[in-house]
Amino acid sequence: MGDTRVSIRVKHGAKEMELECARKDTLLEALSTVHVFHIDASCGGKGTCGKCKVIVSNSNDSNLSKSELKFLSKTEIEKGYRLACQVKVNQEMVVIIDDQEKDAQIEAAHEGFKGSLEPLVKKKYIELPPPSLSDQRDDVTRITDTLGIEELIIPLSLKRTLSKTLRNAGYSVTAVYSCSTLIGVEEGNTETENYGVAVDIGTTTVVAHLLNMYSGKIVDTVSGLNRQKTLGADVISRIEYCIREPEGLKTLSDKIVSQIAEMVTSLVKRNRIREGSLHSIMTAGNTTMMHLLYGTDPEGIAAAPFIPVDLQAASYHSSEIGNFPFDVTFCNLPAISAYVGADITAGILATKMHKKDELSLLIDIGTNGEIVLGNKDKLYCCSTAAGPAFEGAHITCGMGGVFGAIDTISLEDNTIKYTTIGNSKPAGICGSGIIDAVSILLKSGVVDFTGRILEADEIEKPTAKSLVEKHFAEGEGNSFILAPSSVSETGANIVFTQKDIREVQLAKAAISAGVATLLATAGKNTSDIAHVYIAGGFGSYISKESAAAIGLIPAELLDRTESVGNTSGKGAAECSFSRENYLSCNDIIKLTEYVELSSNTYFQGKYMEDMTFPEY
Amino acid sequence: MGDTRVSIRVKHGAKEMELECARKDTLLEALSTVHVFHIDASCGGKGTCGKCKVIVSNSNDSNLSKSELKFLSKTEIEKGYRLACQVKVNQEMVVIIDDQEKDAQIEAAHEGFKGSLEPLVKKKYIELPPPSLSDQRDDVTRITDTLGIEELIIPLSLKRTLSKTLRNAGYSVTAVYSCSTLIGVEEGNTETENYGVAVDIGTTTVVAHLLNMYSGKIVDTVSGLNRQKTLGADVISRIEYCIREPEGLKTLSDKIVSQIAEMVTSLVKRNRIREGSLHSIMTAGNTTMMHLLYGTDPEGIAAAPFIPVDLQAASYHSSEIGNFPFDVTFCNLPAISAYVGADITAGILATKMHKKDELSLLIDIGTNGEIVLGNKDKLYCCSTAAGPAFEGAHITCGMGGVFGAIDTISLEDNTIKYTTIGNSKPAGICGSGIIDAVSILLKSGVVDFTGRILEADEIEKPTAKSLVEKHFAEGEGNSFILAPSSVSETGANIVFTQKDIREVQLAKAAISAGVATLLATAGKNTSDIAHVYIAGGFGSYISKESAAAIGLIPAELLDRTESVGNTSGKGAAECSFSRENYLSCNDIIKLTEYVELSSNTYFQGKYMEDMTFPEY
Repeated sequence: MGDTRVSIRVKHGAKEMELECARKDTLLEALSTVHVFHIDASCGGKGTCGKCKVIVSNSNDSNLSKSELKFLSKTEIEKGYRLACQVKVNQEMVVIIDDQEKDAQIEAAHEGFKGSLEPLVKKKYIELPPPSLSDQRDDVTRITDTLGIEELIIPLSLKRTLSKTLRNAGYSVTAVYSCSTLIGVEEGNTETENYGVAVDIGTTTVVAHLLNMYSGKIVDTVSGLNRQKTLGADVISRIEYCIREPEGLKTLSDKIVSQIAEMVTSLVKRNRIREGSLHSIMTAGNTTMMHLLYGTDPEGIAAAPFIPVDLQAASYHSSEIGNFPFDVTFCNLPAISAYVGADITAGILATKMHKKDELSLLIDIGTNGEIVLGNKDKLYCCSTAAGPAFEGAHITCGMGGVFGAIDTISLEDNTIKYTTIGNSKPAGICGSGIIDAVSILLKSGVVDFTGRILEADEIEKPTAKSLVEKHFAEGEGNSFILAPSSVSETGANIVFTQKDIREVQLAKAAISAGVATLLATAGKNTSDIAHVYIAGGFGSYISKESAAAIGLIPAELLDRTESVGNTSGKGAAECSFSRENYLSCNDIIKLTEYVELSSNTYFQGKYMEDMTFPEY
Repeated sequence: MGDTRVSIRVKHGAKEMELECARKDTLLEALSTVHVFHIDASCGGKGTCGKCKVIVSNSNDSNLSKSELKFLSKTEIEKGYRLACQVKVNQEMVVIIDDQEKDAQIEAAHEGFKGSLEPLVKKKYIELPPPSLSDQRDDVTRITDTLGIEELIIPLSLKRTLSKTLRNAGYSVTAVYSCSTLIGVEEGNTETENYGVAVDIGTTTVVAHLLNMYSGKIVDTVSGLNRQKTLGADVISRIEYCIREPEGLKTLSDKIVSQIAEMVTSLVKRNRIREGSLHSIMTAGNTTMMHLLYGTDPEGIAAAPFIPVDLQAASYHSSEIGNFPFDVTFCNLPAISAYVGADITAGILATKMHKKDELSLLIDIGTNGEIVLGNKDKLYCCSTAAGPAFEGAHITCGMGGVFGAIDTISLEDNTIKYTTIGNSKPAGICGSGIIDAVSILLKSGVVDFTGRILEADEIEKPTAKSLVEKHFAEGEGNSFILAPSSVSETGANIVFTQKDIREVQLAKAAISAGVATLLATAGKNTSDIAHVYIAGGFGSYISKESAAAIGLIPAELLDRTESVGNTSGKGAAECSFSRENYLSCNDIIKLTEYVELSSNTYFQGKYMEDMTFPEY
C-alpha cells in the first residue's frame, strides 16, 4: 500500500470487508467500487439528499461539512455518523453501515431455481423470412407466424416501433412475450438478457430478489423497512390512514411504488444489467399491502364482513400502476381472503404442502399470524390477530430483526447471555430473542404458567433465585435487565417486563388457538401433522425449542418443525421462474378454505384456554 | 312574430330550414338551438377560433368585427362570409352553411340494424348479493360470479373505483363489458344508455355514425374532409410526409385523432347523450389511414414489397391512442393487405358477398380503387392506382362531392344541362359529373374511342356539331365549357378538357383491367357475375349508365349493378352492433386472396388495352 492508497474496513451486518481506495476518494466513491454494500445516495454524492449515513470509527467532529450538520442529528453525530459523500478517505478507518432501512435481517435466497424453467416472461430469438412480393405478410403476422402463437396481443406502443426494429435488425430479433402478449421485440439475439424481480411486500419489511430468468438464479437481494410504516405500523392503521386522509390511499400507494422503484433501480445498477432487459415484477404480500400497491380501496378489509376489492392474480403494465421508471409488467399472486394474502399463497407454493399426501402446518408469523393446515386434498387457513409482538412492537425494548437487536438469549451459569445481530452493542430485542426470553423465564421458574413473574418469596428453584438476583430490576417495574445500560447502544437498560410477557401470551394464544381451530375444522389431531413450517422473516431465526417451550407450537411436533424463511419472496420468485407454478396458484386458491375466526366460538374458547403457558 | 323575434332561413347542402330566434341572439346562438346544423365553434362563441364561418345573404361589410377581419380572407368577405358568433340577428336573413369540412356529401345511414343485436360493448344490470360474514367474496369475484364470465379482465383503473361504486349503489349496478373485459361498472340500471360510434376514415372524407347499441339504430351522422388532406392528397403523399418530416407521423396521427374527437364530441352534444354512456369507437379505413390513426409506421406500405405493420383487428383503450377526451375502447376491422384495407373488409361484410353462392363484384372507388370478386367459397381482391380522378383530383375544375359541385350532366336539345350539390352556383365538377361529361362527349361523337376530342372538320354527328358550337372553348385549350363564368361561383368558366379525359381514361382503365385480372385469376367470365356493388362516397351518386358508357363497368352488367354507398361506415356500424359480424371479419380475411397488380403482367396488358373507350 503506497502513500496514495488507503485501506478501510467496512462492516455491514454480518458482512465485513477490507477495501482499498485512492487517498483522495470520498468514502461514498470508495464504497461504490464494490457491489457488496448498497449505499443510498440519490443526489449522486452532492450532499443534498442526506441519505448516505454511515458510522465512521475515527470520525472527527470538527471536520463536519455543512450538509452533515444539516442532515445529521446531534445523537447521530455523537454516535459517529457521517455522510459518506462528505468524508475524504485520508487515513485508515473502520466504517459501519448501519441502516435499518437497508439492512433488515432477511436471508437472501441466492440459490438456483429447481424445476423446469419456464419463465413468466420468455425470450425467443427468431429469424424472420424477409418480406418480398411473394410474401407480403405484415410485420405482426410475420412475427406471430414464426413464434407460433395465435391471437398474440401486441400493445400499440410496441406496434409503433415494430417496423423500425425489424428493418434495423435485418429481421433477426428476439421476441419478449408473456403468455399471449408480446411485450417487446429486440434487435438481434438477447435471449440471455432476461431479468425479473420478485418482491415480497411485508407490512414491516419489503424484500426484492433480482432474478436471472435465463439461468434460473436469484442474482441479488435487497430489503428495507416498508416506508409506509411511518403512516401506520400495521394493516389496520394504514387502512385507517386511507379512510382518514383524503389522499391517504394515494400517499401510501406512492410510497410503496417509489420504494420498489428504488429497490429495482439499485438491483439493476449494482448488478450492471441493461435496464431494458428487466421485464417483469412479481409481487406477493398480504391483501392490504397488495391493495396499497395497486391503489385499490382497502376500506372493506378493515371492518366486518372484511371484503377486499380483489384477490385475483393479475398483471398490469407498469404505467397503469403509477409513476414507475421501468417499462415492465407487474404481476401478483392470487390471495385467499382479506387476511390470508398472496404472501400465504406463495408460502403454500414454496413449501409444496398443497402437493403432499401428509398433513402439513404452515405458520407465517409476521405482523399478523397466518396459519394453513392441510394436504393435496384440502387446505384450511385462518388469520389470527397475533399482533406484531413477535416483530418487537408493543414490547418495551422491542425492535425489528435489524442491526443491534438481541436475537438469541441463553442461560449460562444462571446468567443471561445474548447475541446481537451484527455483533454490535445491544439496542433492543427482536422476535427470536423475545421467545427465548420468555422460554428461559418460564423454564427457570421465574414466571409461572399463568405468565406472572413470581414474587421473590414465591420462588423455589435455585436457578430462578439466581436469575432474579442477577437480573431483576426492582426500580424499573417488574422487569428483567437483559443488558445493562453500561453496555447498551441506547445508554439505557435493555429490559423485559411483565407487560411484555402478557403481550407474548396474547400473541402465542392467538397462534396456538388458530392451529387448534384448523385442526378441529379439518377433523384432525396434532399427531396427524407430518410437517410444521415456520415462515416469515422472523421464522428464520426463531429457536424451535423456545417456541415449543412457550407453547407457540406443540412440543410433540418439534422434530417435524423447520424454519422456511421468507416463503413469500421465495414463492414469488418461483412463480416468475415458472408459469406452471404461477398457474398452480389458482389451484391452491381453489383447494383452500378460509376459516373466519372472528365469528368462531371454538376459536374464542381455545384462545382463552391457550393464554396460559406450559407448566414446568 | 313580434318585434323581439326574428326569422332566419338556413341552407345547408340539401337541408333547408326556417328558424326563429330572439332579436338579440347571435347567429351562432340561433343555429345552436336546433341540432340539425353543426357549427364548429370551439372557442364557445368568443370570436377567438374563427371556425364558425357561414355565408349571410344580407351581410353588411361595414359591420365586420375585429375577429372577423382577422379570420376572414378578402375573398371570403366578398362572398359574404361572416363568423356566426359575431353576427347579431337583428333582421331577417338567409344563412348558407357552406363548409366543405362539415358538409362532404355522404348519405347518412339512419336506419336500424337488421340482425341479431349483440353489441360489441354490452351492458347488463345485475343485483349482487350483499357481502356478509358467510359470503366474503371480494368485489371482483362477486361481479364475475354474477356475470358468469370467468377470467374477466378488469383494468386497474376500474378496480380502483369499484368498491365505492358497489357500496354507493347498494350492489345494484350495470356492468359494461366487451368480450371478457369489464369496461365499466355504473350505479343502478343504465342498460338503455349504451352508445358507440362507427367511423369510416377515408383518405378524403371521414364519416362518423352515432350508434344506439340498445335500439340498434344509427342515431346521427357527421362527416368532414379528412384534415390530413392539407399534408397530402393521397396515401402515398401522406406516407412521404411521414418519411420526410421528423414528427410527420405524429402530426398526421394527431390530426385524425383530434378530428375524430371533435366529431364524437359533436355527436354526443347535439344528441344530448351522457358522455359516460359512450363506450366504443369502431373504425374502418384503408390500411394507411389505420396506420396514421394508430401512429404505426406506414413507411413499408409506400414501396415494394408493400409491407404494413399490422392488418389485424385490434382494440385499444383510448388512452393508448393519444390525447382523446373520451374513456372508450377503440376497435378496428381487420384489413386484407397494404392496399386493400379494413374499409374493404367492411364493404364485403356490408354487401354480404362472402355469404352468397353467386359471384359478386365489389368496386370501391375512392382515392384508390379497390376491387373484390368472389362468393362464399373464395374472394379475390386487388387495388388499382385508379388515382383520385373520380374524386376530382387532377381534373382541371375538379372538386370533391361537396356543396357547389356539378354532380350530374345531361344533354337537352344538344345543350349541356347540369345540377349542383346544394342547388348552388357551380364551383367545379365532382366524380359523378366527370363520368357523365365523358359519357356525353363519347356518345355524342365529340370524343372518339381513343379519347381524343375530334377536330371540327372530323365531326360528323349533328349532336356533336351542335355541342361543339355551343360549348367548345377555343381560347381555353381543347376544352368544353360546362358552365360559363357568368353563372359560376368562381367567376371563371367551369371547363372539361382533353387532359381531363386522359385522366379519366387512366382511371377507368385501371379499374376495368383490375376487374378483368380478378376474373382471369378466378377463372370466371363477366357473365358469371350476378351482383355488381359500386361503393364509396362517390359510388352513391354515380350514374350507372354513364359508368357503363365509358367502360368503367361492363355494359352487360348494368342490370345487376347497384350503388351501395359508404359500405366502410356501414360495415363498421354492423360490427359494433354485432360481435358475430365483427368476428366474421376474420373469416372474410381468411377467405380473401390478395392479387398484387404491380407485378402482374396480365393486368399490365389489360391496362393498356382498356385505355380506350367503347366505340359509339
